[in-house]
Amino acid sequence: MYREKIKVLDCTIRDGGLINDHRFGDEFVRVVYKALSASGIDYMEMGYRNSRELFPPTDYGDWKYCDDDKIKQVIDGIESDLKLSIMVDAHRVKEQQFAPVDESPVDMIRVATYVKDMDKAIELVHRSHDLGYETTVNLMAISKEIELDLIEGLDQLAKCPVDVVYVVDSFGALYCEQIEYLVKLFKQHLPGKEIGVHCHNNQQLAYANTIEGIIHDANYLDGSLYGIGRGPGNCPLELLIGFLKNPKFNLTPILKIIEEQMLPMLEKIEWGYLIPYMITGILNEHPRSAIAIRKTADKDKYAEFYEQMREAID
Amino acid sequence: MYREKIKVLDCTIRDGGLINDHRFGDEFVRVVYKALSASGIDYMEMGYRNSRELFPPTDYGDWKYCDDDKIKQVIDGIESDLKLSIMVDAHRVKEQQFAPVDESPVDMIRVATYVKDMDKAIELVHRSHDLGYETTVNLMAISKEIELDLIEGLDQLAKCPVDVVYVVDSFGALYCEQIEYLVKLFKQHLPGKEIGVHCHNNQQLAYANTIEGIIHDANYLDGSLYGIGRGPGNCPLELLIGFLKNPKFNLTPILKIIEEQMLPMLEKIEWGYLIPYMITGILNEHPRSAIAIRKTADKDKYAEFYEQMREAID
Repeated sequence: MYREKIKVLDCTIRDGGLINDHRFGDEFVRVVYKALSASGIDYMEMGYRNSRELFPPTDYGDWKYCDDDKIKQVIDGIESDLKLSIMVDAHRVKEQQFAPVDESPVDMIRVATYVKDMDKAIELVHRSHDLGYETTVNLMAISKEIELDLIEGLDQLAKCPVDVVYVVDSFGALYCEQIEYLVKLFKQHLPGKEIGVHCHNNQQLAYANTIEGIIHDANYLDGSLYGIGRGPGNCPLELLIGFLKNPKFNLTPILKIIEEQMLPMLEKIEWGYLIPYMITGILNEHPRSAIAIRKTADKDKYAEFYEQMREAID
Repeated sequence: MYREKIKVLDCTIRDGGLINDHRFGDEFVRVVYKALSASGIDYMEMGYRNSRELFPPTDYGDWKYCDDDKIKQVIDGIESDLKLSIMVDAHRVKEQQFAPVDESPVDMIRVATYVKDMDKAIELVHRSHDLGYETTVNLMAISKEIELDLIEGLDQLAKCPVDVVYVVDSFGALYCEQIEYLVKLFKQHLPGKEIGVHCHNNQQLAYANTIEGIIHDANYLDGSLYGIGRGPGNCPLELLIGFLKNPKFNLTPILKIIEEQMLPMLEKIEWGYLIPYMITGILNEHPRSAIAIRKTADKDKYAEFYEQMREAID
C-alpha cells in the first residue's frame, strides 16, 4: 500500500510506559530513537507530559513527564528526520509547561480525551496550536461512546485547528466493519482533517484493524515494537512496516531492535495476546480487571475470570 | 454474527499434529473431544489418514493415520453431537482404506490439494462421496497459485460432488482484501457449493481473515485451541467463538481446556506469532525455512534471517 500521505507513529515508549510506570532507561529510549530513525518511521512518541502534582515523581519514571530537556539529552548527537510527539490527557492538565515549538524538541502534541472532556481537549489543541505544534486529538474508548455524543464532539473538533483526529480502540473491542464505520463517520464530520487509528490487540485485531483504517483513508497509523503496550499491546510496528510499500520504510532495523531489546524486555514485563485481555476485549470492557488478575496466582484461570466478568457486567 | 449455516471446525489435533509428528496422547485427544462437544463446535478434525507405506509408523503417532478403530476407542462413551473429519492429501494416496460412512466414526473427508493435483483430489472426492462421506476440497497455498489455473480448477470442482471448497492461506500471506477477492471468486465459480476458510497466523491475521471470510459468505470456518498449528498456527478458536453469536456455542469449555491443556503444551512444543514466521508470511513463502531456523541457535536472529530470505527469493 503506497500512499505518500501515510504517517507512521511509534508509541513504544509512551504506551509501553503504561506497563512499567514509564521507567524506561535512557539508553533504551536512545536505541529505539536510533532504530526508528533508521527505519524511516515518521513520529516517535516519547511519553506523556503529565502533571507532577497529580503524579508524583517518586512513583514514575521520566517518560511520564517528558521534559524538553530530558528529551534533548536522550536524542543528543543522533542524526535523524524522526519527528517527536508527546501525549497529554485532556482531563489531567494542571501546571504542565509547554515551550514554543521552536524551543522544544517536540513537534506534535497529541491530546488524549474522552468525548465528555472535549471542551478541555479543544482548549489544549488551541494552546498547542498557538505555540506552533502539530496537534492531534485521540478519542479514547470509542467503543463505549454514544454515537449522538460522539458526533457532537466531532462537529466541535471540525471547527478547531486540530490536524489529526484518531479513532482509539482502547478496549480492543472493535472488528473491521466497526473500524470502517467509525473512520467513515470521522471523515464525514471532519472535512479537511486527517484521520488516525490507534488499535489494541486484545483480539489479535490491532494490525488487521489498522489495515482496515488504511483502506478507508486513515493516514496516521500507530504501532509499537513487537506490539508493546498496556495489556495486550498495540499494532506490531513490524507488521505494519511489512505491509506498507513506501520505499522510505526499512524493516531491518526494526527486526534488529526487536531481537536485541524487545525479546529480553518481554522476559521482564508482560504484554501481548493473553486470554484475560481477550475476554475484556470481547466484552468491550476496560482491561483493568485483566491487568489486575495477571498480577495474582489466578492469572491463568481463564474460564473462572470469564464467568466473573460476565456476571459483573450483567 | 448469527448465521445458522456457519459451521466451525476445530483442527487442533490435525494441524497441531504437524508440530509433534501427530504424537498426541489418547487422553489429550479425548479431553479435546469432550471440550469441543461441550462448546457446541460442529466438527473436530482428528488428523490425517496417511499411507503407512509413505510414512512409516516408527516416525509418527496415531493421528497421522486416524484408523477408524483408533478413533472409536478414543471417543468411546462420550455423549456428543460433534462430527468428525479426517484429512487426506490428494497427492499422497496409496494403500489407505476408507470404510463406508455408516461403519466409520468419521463423517467428513477433507481432501487437501494443490491446484496441480486437482484430478487426484476430484477422484478422492468421488470415492469419499460414494462411500457416503461429506467432502471438502482444501486448496492449499492459494497465495501462490496462478489465477488462470485456479479458475480452471474451480470450474472442474464445480462439476464434482464436493460439498465445501476451502480457501487455504497456507503461508499466512494474505490480508483482508485478498481474502474477500478469493472468497468471491470461489463463490462465483462454485455455484451451490459452500465456501470455507482456513487461515494461518503468520501476520496475526488468521482471525481477522476468518471474519472477512464470514462477511463474504464463507460458512465453513477452521480454528484451533489457542491457535495451535504448524509454525504460527491457525485462527484461535476462542476468538472465533467469542465473535460468533449463535447461542449453540459456549466459550467456557474452550477457555477451560486452554488453561488446563494448551498452556502446559505450549511449554513443550512451540507455535504462535514469532518473527521468522511473520517474515515468511510477508514474503509469501512456505514456513519451512522459519521452522528450520527455530530449531537452531540462530532462532532469534530476525534481521539476518530476513536479509537471507530476501536474497534467496530475489
